[in-house]
Amino acid sequence: MEALKNRILSEGRVLPGDILKIDGFLNHQLDISLLCQIGQEFARRFSGRRIDKILTIEASGIAVACIAAQYFGNLPVVFAKKAKSGNLDTQGLLQSEIYSYTYQKPVMLTVSKDWLRPGERVLVIDDFLANGEALRGCIDLLGQAGAELAGVGIAVEKGFQGGGDRLRGMGIDVQSLAIVESLAGGAIRFREE
Amino acid sequence: MEALKNRILSEGRVLPGDILKIDGFLNHQLDISLLCQIGQEFARRFSGRRIDKILTIEASGIAVACIAAQYFGNLPVVFAKKAKSGNLDTQGLLQSEIYSYTYQKPVMLTVSKDWLRPGERVLVIDDFLANGEALRGCIDLLGQAGAELAGVGIAVEKGFQGGGDRLRGMGIDVQSLAIVESLAGGAIRFREE
Repeated sequence: MEALKNRILSEGRVLPGDILKIDGFLNHQLDISLLCQIGQEFARRFSGRRIDKILTIEASGIAVACIAAQYFGNLPVVFAKKAKSGNLDTQGLLQSEIYSYTYQKPVMLTVSKDWLRPGERVLVIDDFLANGEALRGCIDLLGQAGAELAGVGIAVEKGFQGGGDRLRGMGIDVQSLAIVESLAGGAIRFREE
Repeated sequence: MEALKNRILSEGRVLPGDILKIDGFLNHQLDISLLCQIGQEFARRFSGRRIDKILTIEASGIAVACIAAQYFGNLPVVFAKKAKSGNLDTQGLLQSEIYSYTYQKPVMLTVSKDWLRPGERVLVIDDFLANGEALRGCIDLLGQAGAELAGVGIAVEKGFQGGGDRLRGMGIDVQSLAIVESLAGGAIRFREE
């Protein structure tokens, strides 16, 4: 998606450790017009698919998913919460432990059983995809719920970290609107499509 | 706002400790159509005001603020992150410690100085208002930034916890779309308007 790629090129900053900082429009301050364009593009790419619900992950995934949901006929959005591992009172909850590279520790993705039901077809939407840990957790939650994965919509994928391609290799339809192939030397290079 | 109140009455559950659980449409699963109505109502109540930006607080505040921003001409939305108190590397950050009654511990609200600038007029939007700690933190962050508070838009206020009225007593324009006056005996009663 050209508008997103151009924005990444003009405002993204590459920090040591292959970090791409785009917190002026996607991760901390949110550009609502751009999010609308992103949502429209997801709707175009997943058109004709039966989708009952959108699942995302707090925090910035919520912004992308909620705006996008409007272009899917106002589908309900459920967000997985990030709880500390080992929390009490897991009754009624679906939980999946993932490793957070951002926080450098395990995080427990948590969704109430009330909001993911057997047979529901669920589109997972998130802002970022790197190693794919968060998505692995979401897919695990869907499996626990007996729900089905309808596809994955991602705004920015760090292609060189391999998570997206691993999921594609499992037959999952991962649609990323900008795939960053390399940040070597501080230069942002996108995958050819 | 009648649509919101009716939804609270039909789906809200009152739990011990004066907890109002409305996670089927506002706090965990999100009803996008209802969020659109909420956003339109905020735009109506704050029409004619100069507003440059919307500030909210992760996580479920992001949903309310982003959908609402569309009815304010796609204003940018910034969300305050909830960091553990005592985090390192506070350079470039605005921080305000609040007490979280949900987590029963202090939480550090954090916003990058890049995204709250001197002179900006900021509307704070959040899903819930109870004791007002989160808003106190937001107002503190705005003060540190040299920004101005244009008003506060809240979906659901727990009026009996006093936070909203304390802020109104300070001259702040707090617009809450549903003010719960009492949960006594498990019955949800709204404030007369």
